[in-house]
Amino acid sequence: MSKIVKRTGKGIGVAPGTLVHVGENKNEKVHITMFEYSEENFQENILSEIEECFTSKENSTVKWVNVDAIDKVDIIEKIGSEFKLHPLMLEDILNTAQRPKIDDYDDYVYIVLKMLYFNEKKHQITSEQVSFVLVSNYVFSFQEFEGDVFDNVRERLRSGKRNIRRTGPDYLVYTLIDAIVDSYFDIIEKMADKVDKLEEELIDSPDKDVLKDVHNLKREMIFLRNSIWPLREVINSLARCDTPLFKESTVVYLKDVYDHMIQIIDTIEIYREVLASMQETYISSVSNRTNEVMKILTIFSTIFIPLTFIAGVYGMNFRYLPELEWKFGYILFWIISIAVAFFMLRYFKKKKWL
Amino acid sequence: MSKIVKRTGKGIGVAPGTLVHVGENKNEKVHITMFEYSEENFQENILSEIEECFTSKENSTVKWVNVDAIDKVDIIEKIGSEFKLHPLMLEDILNTAQRPKIDDYDDYVYIVLKMLYFNEKKHQITSEQVSFVLVSNYVFSFQEFEGDVFDNVRERLRSGKRNIRRTGPDYLVYTLIDAIVDSYFDIIEKMADKVDKLEEELIDSPDKDVLKDVHNLKREMIFLRNSIWPLREVINSLARCDTPLFKESTVVYLKDVYDHMIQIIDTIEIYREVLASMQETYISSVSNRTNEVMKILTIFSTIFIPLTFIAGVYGMNFRYLPELEWKFGYILFWIISIAVAFFMLRYFKKKKWL
Amino acid sequence: MSKIVKRTGKGIGVAPGTLVHVGENKNEKVHITMFEYSEENFQENILSEIEECFTSKENSTVKWVNVDAIDKVDIIEKIGSEFKLHPLMLEDILNTAQRPKIDDYDDYVYIVLKMLYFNEKKHQITSEQVSFVLVSNYVFSFQEFEGDVFDNVRERLRSGKRNIRRTGPDYLVYTLIDAIVDSYFDIIEKMADKVDKLEEELIDSPDKDVLKDVHNLKREMIFLRNSIWPLREVINSLARCDTPLFKESTVVYLKDVYDHMIQIIDTIEIYREVLASMQETYISSVSNRTNEVMKILTIFSTIFIPLTFIAGVYGMNFRYLPELEWKFGYILFWIISIAVAFFMLRYFKKKKWL
Amino acid sequence: MSKIVKRTGKGIGVAPGTLVHVGENKNEKVHITMFEYSEENFQENILSEIEECFTSKENSTVKWVNVDAIDKVDIIEKIGSEFKLHPLMLEDILNTAQRPKIDDYDDYVYIVLKMLYFNEKKHQITSEQVSFVLVSNYVFSFQEFEGDVFDNVRERLRSGKRNIRRTGPDYLVYTLIDAIVDSYFDIIEKMADKVDKLEEELIDSPDKDVLKDVHNLKREMIFLRNSIWPLREVINSLARCDTPLFKESTVVYLKDVYDHMIQIIDTIEIYREVLASMQETYISSVSNRTNEVMKILTIFSTIFIPLTFIAGVYGMNFRYLPELEWKFGYILFWIISIAVAFFMLRYFKKKKWL
Amino acid sequence: MSKIVKRTGKGIGVAPGTLVHVGENKNEKVHITMFEYSEENFQENILSEIEECFTSKENSTVKWVNVDAIDKVDIIEKIGSEFKLHPLMLEDILNTAQRPKIDDYDDYVYIVLKMLYFNEKKHQITSEQVSFVLVSNYVFSFQEFEGDVFDNVRERLRSGKRNIRRTGPDYLVYTLIDAIVDSYFDIIEKMADKVDKLEEELIDSPDKDVLKDVHNLKREMIFLRNSIWPLREVINSLARCDTPLFKESTVVYLKDVYDHMIQIIDTIEIYREVLASMQETYISSVSNRTNEVMKILTIFSTIFIPLTFIAGVYGMNFRYLPELEWKFGYILFWIISIAVAFFMLRYFKKKKWL
Repeated sequence: MSKIVKRTGKGIGVAPGTLVHVGENKNEKVHITMFEYSEENFQENILSEIEECFTSKENSTVKWVNVDAIDKVDIIEKIGSEFKLHPLMLEDILNTAQRPKIDDYDDYVYIVLKMLYFNEKKHQITSEQVSFVLVSNYVFSFQEFEGDVFDNVRERLRSGKRNIRRTGPDYLVYTLIDAIVDSYFDIIEKMADKVDKLEEELIDSPDKDVLKDVHNLKREMIFLRNSIWPLREVINSLARCDTPLFKESTVVYLKDVYDHMIQIIDTIEIYREVLASMQETYISSVSNRTNEVMKILTIFSTIFIPLTFIAGVYGMNFRYLPELEWKFGYILFWIISIAVAFFMLRYFKKKKWL
Repeated sequence: MSKIVKRTGKGIGVAPGTLVHVGENKNEKVHITMFEYSEENFQENILSEIEECFTSKENSTVKWVNVDAIDKVDIIEKIGSEFKLHPLMLEDILNTAQRPKIDDYDDYVYIVLKMLYFNEKKHQITSEQVSFVLVSNYVFSFQEFEGDVFDNVRERLRSGKRNIRRTGPDYLVYTLIDAIVDSYFDIIEKMADKVDKLEEELIDSPDKDVLKDVHNLKREMIFLRNSIWPLREVINSLARCDTPLFKESTVVYLKDVYDHMIQIIDTIEIYREVLASMQETYISSVSNRTNEVMKILTIFSTIFIPLTFIAGVYGMNFRYLPELEWKFGYILFWIISIAVAFFMLRYFKKKKWL
Repeated sequence: MSKIVKRTGKGIGVAPGTLVHVGENKNEKVHITMFEYSEENFQENILSEIEECFTSKENSTVKWVNVDAIDKVDIIEKIGSEFKLHPLMLEDILNTAQRPKIDDYDDYVYIVLKMLYFNEKKHQITSEQVSFVLVSNYVFSFQEFEGDVFDNVRERLRSGKRNIRRTGPDYLVYTLIDAIVDSYFDIIEKMADKVDKLEEELIDSPDKDVLKDVHNLKREMIFLRNSIWPLREVINSLARCDTPLFKESTVVYLKDVYDHMIQIIDTIEIYREVLASMQETYISSVSNRTNEVMKILTIFSTIFIPLTFIAGVYGMNFRYLPELEWKFGYILFWIISIAVAFFMLRYFKKKKWL
Repeated sequence: MSKIVKRTGKGIGVAPGTLVHVGENKNEKVHITMFEYSEENFQENILSEIEECFTSKENSTVKWVNVDAIDKVDIIEKIGSEFKLHPLMLEDILNTAQRPKIDDYDDYVYIVLKMLYFNEKKHQITSEQVSFVLVSNYVFSFQEFEGDVFDNVRERLRSGKRNIRRTGPDYLVYTLIDAIVDSYFDIIEKMADKVDKLEEELIDSPDKDVLKDVHNLKREMIFLRNSIWPLREVINSLARCDTPLFKESTVVYLKDVYDHMIQIIDTIEIYREVLASMQETYISSVSNRTNEVMKILTIFSTIFIPLTFIAGVYGMNFRYLPELEWKFGYILFWIISIAVAFFMLRYFKKKKWL
Repeated sequence: MSKIVKRTGKGIGVAPGTLVHVGENKNEKVHITMFEYSEENFQENILSEIEECFTSKENSTVKWVNVDAIDKVDIIEKIGSEFKLHPLMLEDILNTAQRPKIDDYDDYVYIVLKMLYFNEKKHQITSEQVSFVLVSNYVFSFQEFEGDVFDNVRERLRSGKRNIRRTGPDYLVYTLIDAIVDSYFDIIEKMADKVDKLEEELIDSPDKDVLKDVHNLKREMIFLRNSIWPLREVINSLARCDTPLFKESTVVYLKDVYDHMIQIIDTIEIYREVLASMQETYISSVSNRTNEVMKILTIFSTIFIPLTFIAGVYGMNFRYLPELEWKFGYILFWIISIAVAFFMLRYFKKKKWL
């Protein structure tokens, strides 16, 4: 199951703005890539030092600097001091237990959200924190691990088709957020498939595994909603154009992303309801089966228990037990037995147990 | 069961405004019909090419162009370039997984909603997306499949009675939305009939099929609410007259549709509550029956088990077993047996099990 | 059970303002009564034609025209054309499936609400739609059937005591609404009695009928809330004095009605909660009884099954079965049996099953 | 159980402002006491006629007139005509089924709320309606019965310590409300004790009485919340200083009462949640015990039923039944029996039933 | 279990502002410590009398006076008269049953919140009330017991690193609140561990202890939410800069604390949902096991009961019982018995009980 709680930051009472990486220690090497582009030009570099990206600061080109592996405190610090970023923001980048949010520092904007993957092997959702910093014509993106959902964006930048290279860094931020939101649909579809599959087993064979799966799916859904829900507010506040860094023309696109967010949240809510209904149906279904089992037991018991008693009676060794001497005693015994069984069965038929 | 999730659009990170049809591929032929009318004139044509409808652009007549089968990207593109429509809107028309919404682009309005059908055979609701574009005096409507709920509207246009031909394209949009909302009542009535039928079976014969039906109805209700709920906001924002394209006189009618929407949503909520109560009643009912079954088993067992024991005792082969020699031993055995049974029955009577 | 859904109006796509009666066809004769009064004068007439009430249009007297049986389309049409009422409003009067609402058309106000009766025989609530139109100094009231809760109001008008005749038509509308709201308290009290009666049976004898009653009461409560809840908003918007047709002095009284509405809705919510709790208590109670039944079965079975086995052992016909030859074998058998039973009983006592 | 619904007022359609006492008829004598005080003076009188309190109308002293037993219509009428109070307000005083509310009539303020007592004998909460009218420098308080929670307030008035005698009638109203709110804490503590006691029994011995107690406590909690919840709004609107009759300096104290109200409501909500959880825990607990009982039954049955069968086999009277002749047949029988029992027990051990 | 209700204050009707300690009487000695610092200076003293801290009132240094054990009324009174604090505020400090809140008295601010500890031994959360008073450049903090979560803050003050000594008393208040909020994460993590551990046992071995633990955890969660939830509003109103005593530069940090609060509340809500789901899963799981037990019982019973009957038949002592004389009667008996058992088993296999 996905871990719901992650430790937020520094120890109790530690000074705010203290830069400590909080999260799992991956020990991966840092990968820094930079895409620099304008309508005519395009350049793609892998940087060995973060300082290399500061040299083109005066160019009017848009610069997208992507940093994988955010546990290297020094990179964050260098960027922070170069662009005079608030220490609380730097702390937030390093802390991988952030709630999706947007912080508007007038000169720059900090956006943090969750990239979700569906781990096919473990059948669970894993989440990775992505931070964006939009400052002058730089877009910095910080990821926890290598690998992301931005490959299509990179391809569009390289090919230069469509208007992505004609637009500013705010449009790039939109594009990256859009890619992440699109990837949520994949997750939800996979969850949906699991729900649909479970629903079939639910009524016909409600065993322990189904119960486990329903419980786990509910948990995953809660986790999913928690990761996605706050993003709604983030995108909404971007789309309401609170931030001068986002142009009017980009805002139309942000509204489109916002619509997608609403749709995703709607869908999650629906599945949460469906799962809640499934758990009740599960209980009903098990009760039903217990009832069936009970009926079979009861039918058998109530038919044979009286018969066994009668057989027991004529197995008694009383000296004076007249029926035993009768010529047709044994035949009579069978007639009585069959009659009892017959009437019991008719009774159960009437009760609609058969 | 109705599928709840539909894939929204393009792959991850694909450029916005990329026109790709998203939805089931029906391979049906495109049907384009055009109704052109003013108070005096009325013309009804089947178009082979979408361009034919652009010729009368300068006429003051109202033009309703209905396009069945929306998977033909080129038609959308042609309309888009003719009227300079925003690419995001064109993308939305093609994507059949839209949430009902209204997008106001100042010069034109885009409305998307769901037309619902009750499939009698599969006992489930199917949904079809309908998009309306109101631009100058054109009303474009885009449907997924042939067949719709607009036949009455067409008849009214042809007959020219009532004031439908005296009013503008905004009134036509109202009329089409009204027809769709009216059709929701049909769906809800059919659902209501199913609920009423189930309710009777619920307490008297709570078997597995009833459980399945309750669960499926709950699911359908969730689906229904999800399809209809956002429409409320759409019609409300139309009725609040945010859009200059809608005249004051039409707004009164929109308020009427809004009242209907509220009533539909109220009814759905009521049935959701009734269904929730039904599931609990189902569990109660099954528990009740299990209790009944248990009582029968217990009565039989507790009466005959002691008797069988006594019969067993006198079936023993001990050499010294004095009772066996008694003259009235056997009679005594029956007297004791009947007494035991009698007192057990009285006890159960007192416990109100009988 | 009360039917929750009523068909709303006209077929799909039929023109708005088409006057068709929607509701059960009662075929009752129309009864039209008119009360005309001022501080000094009072007149009460039964009209055979609706036109008779138009003659006194110029008088400054207040005129209350009550129309029973609303399926006569022509009466509505005549009133509509006389006072130039909006066709949508006329359609609403005829359609008995309205949600309580207020429509303010500047020159006149349309109010629709539900009159509720408790049908003692069928033990269910029936509802009747009442529409009020307040136009100049006319108050029109339209009811579905004969018989209403306005007899006290008529008496007060006739007697001329209190200030009802000194006030305008808005006060009359308030008085009529107040009478309807007061009648809701009767309904709720009757429901309350049923709930209280059920509550007693609930824990002591939770049988199938109790379950049925709880489920039906929940349904009635949902129906009740649905009929009453929207009225809150209606009265609130009247009391907030949105409508110039209602004088300041009347508004104080409307606030009083509003307080009553709140109290009624509070009470309904409470009973809904109590009923929800009752269903859970029902399940608990049945589980409890099943547990009791199981205990009795288990006690009997576990005591006698071992004893029956022992008796079976000494009923075996082995040639070499030494105990059978013992002098005190039979006595020993009984000692063992009683000891087993004794220890079992002590065990159950310790487990607090006895 | 506490009665939730009280009849609100007059019959259907009776004129508003008709003064009829609605509530239980206590036939108690009316007690009227008057406290008249200023910073220097203090006088305490028992009045035989309400008119006596009007004589000192012109004094600048604060006058608190407390009327026990509100079923005497004439007293209310005299006060009403003396101070020109609105008839609707007088009706409200007489009607003991009011929802807590504040009515601001510019010149005077009417506050109605519930005084709650915990009846130790019947283990239920009883409620008494208290109305306050603050008009010029009079404070009228109307109670249903004798006995209240104001004794401490009276003592403080008599002693003249603290600033209660230096302040105006608004501060007196605050003090009285504060006394009532403080008394709620007592009720809640008593409820809390009951909940805590029940919680212990819940899991260990979930019998019918516990179920009854949980259900009744839930009902009491609903009743409690209903009586207290609306008071929040009352005190809030007082504390927001909507009423010129309340001085700024008193408003600080009202905010303090408001904080207490919030805390009380929080606590009630918590206990409602705890009780809801308790009912689910009860069901779980009973299911658990049924499971235990079933296991014992099953273990016994499945061990002895096969053994009894074997014993039955060798009790058969077939002429040719070779085992009966074996020398060690009987010994073998026991060996097999013990082996069967042993393997069954091991099986159940493995299943963790033992 | 944590006690949810604490008595709020003084008896019914006691004058507000009466200083009485409400809470457990610890009889501990009072510890007063004072930190006095500016950018250059730092002094740390243990005070024997509270008056000692008033001497440096005119200094521009920031003074943090921490008072452990708040049951000494005289200390509170002295501070109150020295700084002219409102008696209601002093009463609140002494009353340990406060709901977290902020009271803004223009010249000074009063903040009260809960410090939570996880008691490892009793496996429950204990809470301690902390009050802050920010007046001129004093920060008073009042705690119930010795020991707190402020050690890191003290260390930072002593070391003088970071900007804590360069900032005003408002920043100190922020730092202290931040330390408390940070400590909540610890509590939640511990709760989370307990939930995770329970979840594993839930489905596999749902016994009484698991039920008890789930119920207690739910209770703790309710308690936790109740202690933390109101703090959200407190910090929000601080962060919205309603109070001139808090500087703009500090407000940025308060927003950061607010984000943490939201995250904590989110997490609590998630765990509440998970626990609710767990209780349902528990019921499902127990039902499931009962079903399993029933199946085993039923299989055994339905196989052996008919066999035992047959054995009983041939144990009868009828004189004329022809099968007993058959040569292969006994063999036949076994063949029939095995056939019956075989077909029963096949039937259960088909039913998927095996």
